[in-house]
Amino acid sequence: MTAWAVDQASLGELVDAGLTSIEEAMYQATSSEVEVLRDASRHILSAGGKRIRPRLLLLSYLALGGNDLERVAKPAAAVELMHTASVVHDDINDHGIVRRGRPSVNSIWGRTFALLTGDFLFTAVYELMAPYQHLNVDLARAATALVEGETLQASAVKDKIFTRDIYMRIIALKTAALFRAAGTIGAKLANGSSDAVAALSSFGFNLGMAFQIVDDILDLVADESTLGKSTGIDLEQGRGVAVALNDAGNSSSNGRHDIADPMDQIKRRLLEGNTIAEAREQAELLVQDAIVQLSVIPNSHYKEELVGLANLVIERDY
Amino acid sequence: MTAWAVDQASLGELVDAGLTSIEEAMYQATSSEVEVLRDASRHILSAGGKRIRPRLLLLSYLALGGNDLERVAKPAAAVELMHTASVVHDDINDHGIVRRGRPSVNSIWGRTFALLTGDFLFTAVYELMAPYQHLNVDLARAATALVEGETLQASAVKDKIFTRDIYMRIIALKTAALFRAAGTIGAKLANGSSDAVAALSSFGFNLGMAFQIVDDILDLVADESTLGKSTGIDLEQGRGVAVALNDAGNSSSNGRHDIADPMDQIKRRLLEGNTIAEAREQAELLVQDAIVQLSVIPNSHYKEELVGLANLVIERDY
Repeated sequence: MTAWAVDQASLGELVDAGLTSIEEAMYQATSSEVEVLRDASRHILSAGGKRIRPRLLLLSYLALGGNDLERVAKPAAAVELMHTASVVHDDINDHGIVRRGRPSVNSIWGRTFALLTGDFLFTAVYELMAPYQHLNVDLARAATALVEGETLQASAVKDKIFTRDIYMRIIALKTAALFRAAGTIGAKLANGSSDAVAALSSFGFNLGMAFQIVDDILDLVADESTLGKSTGIDLEQGRGVAVALNDAGNSSSNGRHDIADPMDQIKRRLLEGNTIAEAREQAELLVQDAIVQLSVIPNSHYKEELVGLANLVIERDY
Repeated sequence: MTAWAVDQASLGELVDAGLTSIEEAMYQATSSEVEVLRDASRHILSAGGKRIRPRLLLLSYLALGGNDLERVAKPAAAVELMHTASVVHDDINDHGIVRRGRPSVNSIWGRTFALLTGDFLFTAVYELMAPYQHLNVDLARAATALVEGETLQASAVKDKIFTRDIYMRIIALKTAALFRAAGTIGAKLANGSSDAVAALSSFGFNLGMAFQIVDDILDLVADESTLGKSTGIDLEQGRGVAVALNDAGNSSSNGRHDIADPMDQIKRRLLEGNTIAEAREQAELLVQDAIVQLSVIPNSHYKEELVGLANLVIERDY
């Protein structure tokens, strides 16, 4: 084995060790004495998930020279728990029954306990981050943005107005804000320069936008067993990237769509037209833009992993 | 007007000014650009409520010599918003339709938006407290306890096991922990000695226990228009102080109660027997105990107001 290969291997090991510490921190943070909260939290956590947000935080930290895995584990765990809390509450509102390849919390424990489990995951984030002060401000803002984005989405569905502009605003709030916070917090934890912090914040934001667009495409085209969650919810509820882009292409509709339109017909039209190809192109542009941001960061193994993460976001099929 | 009277008046004015600052901080913290969140939050906030938790925090602060109303307003607002968040989520789970004399958030905006409004109030707390670090740890723990208490209660109802011990554990978590945090945070903000902080923490905890017992009695005996919220929910759901004490008096039942028992019959039995008198006596003992804790605090107008607050908790009929 060459010296270079050894070096690459040990760099990779630091990432793996970091991810393990993050899992432990999440496990620890959900060790309630109240059985239902512990069981339901760990049910969804142990199902896995892509862990893309904590990975983004960890790599941002390592790419700027951070090397204290204990220090980075709790904020990274908090970011993933925040996402998980929102997922548990989403599944109540959307009646989602499959999540991460398993029955959703509400489908096993019922709505009351799912609501409380989501609340508990929120308060676990709050407890984990309470000692961090300035970093905590970044995550707290992202938490509010997330809830605002979910609410805007529910309002748009209710009012049957789902334009491209509204769609972009929704995904910026509900998804990209938390990705941005992950980049920001990782960079700040490593005491990065203000340029480096701005670059990783912006990288995170663009990545989050691309991630959500791809997620919405997958909701439409993937099947449930590959994706590991209930699919077709966006279309059923009259939202998501396809609905937004489809309406944008038909300006006379002014974003209002006829939900009485049979779903099969809408779906066929979306899959036949350019809508999905256009959305994918937009996601690719966002990822290219994200990668450009990294030019101010010194080259390193971790920078390469950040680029790999960005590419994974658009190449994934789950 | 004597000098003493002037003095008393100006002391009272400081409390009033503090309460006004707290209202402003809550209003500010809920200034989302997302209409539903702002409207629903302010709907419930502007309905009033007793504001007993922020008052406890404010008086604890003033009693230990604190005098910076700007400094105390945000944490006090956070404590009230945390309580409000839990109330909004409670009303979803309990199908409560009246709260603070108004239609509940879920009855106006529906379940989806009520869930998101509760989440938003949680994240507003998180944002408000993010800069406070050590105090934030106290509030974060109380937030987790609150959710744990609500969950234990829902579990006890589901399992039909509602003993006196379980009841005391539930109210310690769901109510007294936040009251304790209010006392602790007020005292710490005023840079109180560790004895003073411990005294006000303990005062808050006992007050919270008494408050919840009285709340549960009122749920049983008060009418809806006086109380300003849906009544009889505890009994209907097989929980609350009366159910706990009633079971304790009948040891053979081992805390299991027959929910098929017609509600009218249970209610009559409870109102005729000693159950409510016993519960009220317990609340009075807790308040006496709370007041004893204050002996380590120097005498002042604010200490008298704390005693007044404690007495109000057991004397109130709403």
